[in-house]
Amino acid sequence: MEQRLSLITLGVADLDRAVAFYEALGWRRSARAAGGVAFFQLGGVALALWSAGELAEDAGVPAEPGAGFRGVALAHNVRAREEVDSVAAEAARAGGRIVKPPEEKVWGGYGGYVADPDGHLWEIAWNPGFPIEADGSLRLPD
Amino acid sequence: MEQRLSLITLGVADLDRAVAFYEALGWRRSARAAGGVAFFQLGGVALALWSAGELAEDAGVPAEPGAGFRGVALAHNVRAREEVDSVAAEAARAGGRIVKPPEEKVWGGYGGYVADPDGHLWEIAWNPGFPIEADGSLRLPD
Repeated sequence: MEQRLSLITLGVADLDRAVAFYEALGWRRSARAAGGVAFFQLGGVALALWSAGELAEDAGVPAEPGAGFRGVALAHNVRAREEVDSVAAEAARAGGRIVKPPEEKVWGGYGGYVADPDGHLWEIAWNPGFPIEADGSLRLPD
Repeated sequence: MEQRLSLITLGVADLDRAVAFYEALGWRRSARAAGGVAFFQLGGVALALWSAGELAEDAGVPAEPGAGFRGVALAHNVRAREEVDSVAAEAARAGGRIVKPPEEKVWGGYGGYVADPDGHLWEIAWNPGFPIEADGSLRLPD
């Protein structure tokens, strides 16, 4: 597993309200928007805002606060579909817990979730629409 | 507030266990280590692992799960001490909530915490030991 981070996804109760806040900071939302997710380019990583309920469902964890869901997921995107299984397995061997085994995603990619020893969620994903740069950074379309 | 992210801090129950997991992924810990915080360079941002209780205390929020604390804080570091107050005020004007007004930090910097509309914590900080590159990235010492 390369030493990289691709996205930070924050679970939100109201997407429009969340987007309005980040835009009010003077930040510019990426033209890239899919399935109710708003993206902002932050250097070589992307910040994603997504319904907290949908994020919990995607990760296969209970959405209730206090049930262990933090409303945050970090993502490590890989360059090829076949890397997802091997990187998830590597994270499990390192002591992570497979929260949701890799599966086909409705958005056309492939991914799964692994929790670190403290329960912090990492999605290991291949997204054909999100190419990884040579330096490992994720660049959203303008 | 520039469209940048400096650090992601994950609250952990056992620092050695958490470090062992990330090192078992093949990741290399930064030589930079201070006050029980372990850092890993992830492209232009840093991943920090820190006691969840100390992180909650630093942010001035109850540490109990279910009390709203997610065990995660994002940080936006600024280039000069005097920027902290203005950026925190800007985030508040944008609809954020000042969780902890900027104050002198024991590690020699100055910073405060603002929550976004969903309660996600952003630390706005100036850290004289963490210079910000021209491109906005945070580079830890090797």
